[in-house]
Amino acid sequence: MRRLGFPPAEPRHIFSSAFCAARYLRQALPPGAAAYVLGSPALAAELEAVGIPHLGPGPAALPGPAPKDWVQAPLDPAVRAVLVGFDEHFSYAKLCQALRYLLRGGPDCLLVGTNRDHRLPLEGGAGIPGTGCLVKAVETAAQREAFIVGKPNRFMFDCVAGEFQVDPARTIMVGDRLDTDILMGNDCGLTTLLTLTGVTALDEVRGHQDSGCPARHSLVPDFYVDSIADLLPALGE
Amino acid sequence: MRRLGFPPAEPRHIFSSAFCAARYLRQALPPGAAAYVLGSPALAAELEAVGIPHLGPGPAALPGPAPKDWVQAPLDPAVRAVLVGFDEHFSYAKLCQALRYLLRGGPDCLLVGTNRDHRLPLEGGAGIPGTGCLVKAVETAAQREAFIVGKPNRFMFDCVAGEFQVDPARTIMVGDRLDTDILMGNDCGLTTLLTLTGVTALDEVRGHQDSGCPARHSLVPDFYVDSIADLLPALGE
Repeated sequence: MRRLGFPPAEPRHIFSSAFCAARYLRQALPPGAAAYVLGSPALAAELEAVGIPHLGPGPAALPGPAPKDWVQAPLDPAVRAVLVGFDEHFSYAKLCQALRYLLRGGPDCLLVGTNRDHRLPLEGGAGIPGTGCLVKAVETAAQREAFIVGKPNRFMFDCVAGEFQVDPARTIMVGDRLDTDILMGNDCGLTTLLTLTGVTALDEVRGHQDSGCPARHSLVPDFYVDSIADLLPALGE
Repeated sequence: MRRLGFPPAEPRHIFSSAFCAARYLRQALPPGAAAYVLGSPALAAELEAVGIPHLGPGPAALPGPAPKDWVQAPLDPAVRAVLVGFDEHFSYAKLCQALRYLLRGGPDCLLVGTNRDHRLPLEGGAGIPGTGCLVKAVETAAQREAFIVGKPNRFMFDCVAGEFQVDPARTIMVGDRLDTDILMGNDCGLTTLLTLTGVTALDEVRGHQDSGCPARHSLVPDFYVDSIADLLPALGE
């Protein structure tokens, strides 16, 4: 970012889906309500920072050998939301407990996911299952759709716009994924720029552009660059 | 069944989705190929009964603290299928390993699920997450659809018809779910009978019947009874 001529980023400039999830719950939950969290200690820390009591992070075991024991484990009376993030301790025991909170609360218990990433890429072409897999498991059990905080949902942009003065007409969304980055940018009325260094090939863009389908048109960026470095000369002007 | 005038059932008369899954893999896998199983010891026993080596059942931990460790755990070279059944030990560690087998094998690694039940009902109206939640998690990670052995797939009927002389024109499918029992029966050319003692109300049937939609018509049974006991007089004739 510094090479591109921007001042160094501060923590308050960085909006992660975990940070935005905590803000969403602070807005949506009544005072004193707690969240059952399938997620990391980092996600739990974001909830603590906005004063939302939480339980769930870390390993959990089934409370007994038989299904009748599993549905008799204690439930925290304060829980009014199930929040699903990336959770390396995700287990049937936690899925079961999440379902019990959602069934107990009905529509009064929120179901929130940080994102729908199906896989997280690692170096060397390997990949591990992403948060989207865990969200799908909980959604399937509860037969409800989760509210997804991350892109392409505009909530994430609204978080930024609520904190800083952002004029959509003078804002560019830079990203490497059509179905998250570019879709959100177009939805929020931003100019969109695709970088081809990531997961997207230009053929995919052309397919959407030539499709004649409005839903697919909203995945087409205004501009593209092979690499973010191609922007340097323009920014120098 | 005895009260209805049928002779006592023997084990060979009972076709579970676990039994049919083992038969499916025996047909579909090359000799010597093994299966990575997210499932119960009972599912593993069905595979043993047809001579398919397997690994997976029981608890599993992530092989190290960081994602780079998770993608370096050993993989069994013989595995050519991932089989997903009901697994109370389902975990992120197992989801990760399943994805690695599916990515390694590509289309040469089968992805098979026993059923898509989203919930298993318990007495007193409680419910626990069903196999369908686990299948969805694996499908989302792998971005592939699983072959589902159980109803409404006709594979299950074909298993029965391959073992016993079954004349579809003289066979009645009795069940309490439209989207599994009745759909499979209609697809296989059987007469279908819905019992209203289960999860389905008559209004739902009427909705499908009046919809004018062919896909929904295939969910409409030929007959219905309030209770299976209503059949007794007819069978006595």
